[in-house]
Amino acid sequence: METPEASMHVFDAAIALSKHDDNTYTGHTSAAYGNMVGPFGGVIGATLLNAVMCHPDRLGEPLSLTVHYAAPIADGSFSVHARAVRTNRSTQHWFIELIQAGEVAAFATAVTAIRRDTWSATDAAFPHVPPADSITPTPAIPAAAWTACYDMRFIDGGPGTPDTGGHPSQSRLWIRDQPSRPLDFLSLSAICDAFFPRIFVRRPKWVPIGTVTLTTYFHASATQLAAQGNSPLLGVARALHFGKGFFDQSAEVWNADGVLLAATHQVVYFKE
Amino acid sequence: METPEASMHVFDAAIALSKHDDNTYTGHTSAAYGNMVGPFGGVIGATLLNAVMCHPDRLGEPLSLTVHYAAPIADGSFSVHARAVRTNRSTQHWFIELIQAGEVAAFATAVTAIRRDTWSATDAAFPHVPPADSITPTPAIPAAAWTACYDMRFIDGGPGTPDTGGHPSQSRLWIRDQPSRPLDFLSLSAICDAFFPRIFVRRPKWVPIGTVTLTTYFHASATQLAAQGNSPLLGVARALHFGKGFFDQSAEVWNADGVLLAATHQVVYFKE
Repeated sequence: METPEASMHVFDAAIALSKHDDNTYTGHTSAAYGNMVGPFGGVIGATLLNAVMCHPDRLGEPLSLTVHYAAPIADGSFSVHARAVRTNRSTQHWFIELIQAGEVAAFATAVTAIRRDTWSATDAAFPHVPPADSITPTPAIPAAAWTACYDMRFIDGGPGTPDTGGHPSQSRLWIRDQPSRPLDFLSLSAICDAFFPRIFVRRPKWVPIGTVTLTTYFHASATQLAAQGNSPLLGVARALHFGKGFFDQSAEVWNADGVLLAATHQVVYFKE
Repeated sequence: METPEASMHVFDAAIALSKHDDNTYTGHTSAAYGNMVGPFGGVIGATLLNAVMCHPDRLGEPLSLTVHYAAPIADGSFSVHARAVRTNRSTQHWFIELIQAGEVAAFATAVTAIRRDTWSATDAAFPHVPPADSITPTPAIPAAAWTACYDMRFIDGGPGTPDTGGHPSQSRLWIRDQPSRPLDFLSLSAICDAFFPRIFVRRPKWVPIGTVTLTTYFHASATQLAAQGNSPLLGVARALHFGKGFFDQSAEVWNADGVLLAATHQVVYFKE
């Protein structure tokens, strides 16, 4: 007989939390989502958001998530502490800490909100690109285990596709969990951190890098994400500025029908 | 004889903090920076960042700032509590709370960093626009006192300039403090929240709005900002998506020579 863990998707196993009390959970890093140094940041962010999703006092659905990667995270277990800082009628503001060896190694703020249908418009431009099934998946990068957990199909700006579509640091790619998994806020939050650091697109030189902080705005509802199923998403990422040891990059995540699911921004440390 | 307060720039008076101990300060809302309801958010964010700037343990200069506008702020005094959550060799992560009537009304996270010269490039596009002195300042909006604290000169997407330069929700404007004031991280952080809510550019209908959370990435050093003096800055703002009661907008802030000083992103509540 299978244990519950064995039947779980690798992503769900990676972000799983054991509850101590409403505010306090225990988690564990996942070898499957290992990065060159420490865990893939997208799974850490999703784990912090998961503490909010698990919280019995949560109001509404995720609207924003800001993750601070404050220090290296060692392989092994950690505790997560989540608290609602302020609860209003339709919005709620959260502070979540990941604690390892008695120190905060990562933390996040989030907003959850009850969302109602209103006037709607999208001003970001949906790019017209070839469909996912017409593009060959990019092989995983052995030194970054987490890349094997995503099916990534680059239109441009990817490994082996040095053309960047006219923008010096742009990538456009179809992406989904590998093996496939129905989309939800947790997996979408991780996908928002799955864009390769723009500096590797911008210049052909390997340097140490690390995301310092990442902010994601969610535009879709849980219902819309569920309807997405496990279809590939279209990501478009580009840098704004590199200098004095840091750069920032922004990305949009769309479904194949041109619905903007999330926008995400991050600042990244680099050496040299 | 002037009191020190009377000789202060109105912005410095608005963000002034009295120190209780290294982590705890008292501030007061400013009538000059009043908004339609409560204070202008840019000054609240600058006040929270000011607690970090005043802190004796601060390492380096601001790299990022995320402000959560968690609840309405009443006219009057408030306390500010700032703590370094994690300090590394060259980066430091902060959590700052604004407390009024015993509850958190706003809070922020920030990263400060020691920055060193590295390879540098700007991928965001600097727009070529007419110089500031060729454009008439836009009159202040009487119902939003804070607008009188900025000299704003719209190239497009402003009140009375309905053309939006080909993008449905874009504004481009020259902006500086009014009266003029040498630029620093504090005034720059406030300017990053001075772009009108994009929904008012996008459709000609007044609805209640409020910024929920705002993130700014600083690309300039203190030295670069000081060299800027009180010259006008060029801001370019646009929305990404409106729907289900919220929209997000992004902006870049440049100097007249095409140096990107900051990039900023926010999500805003709207009714209907």
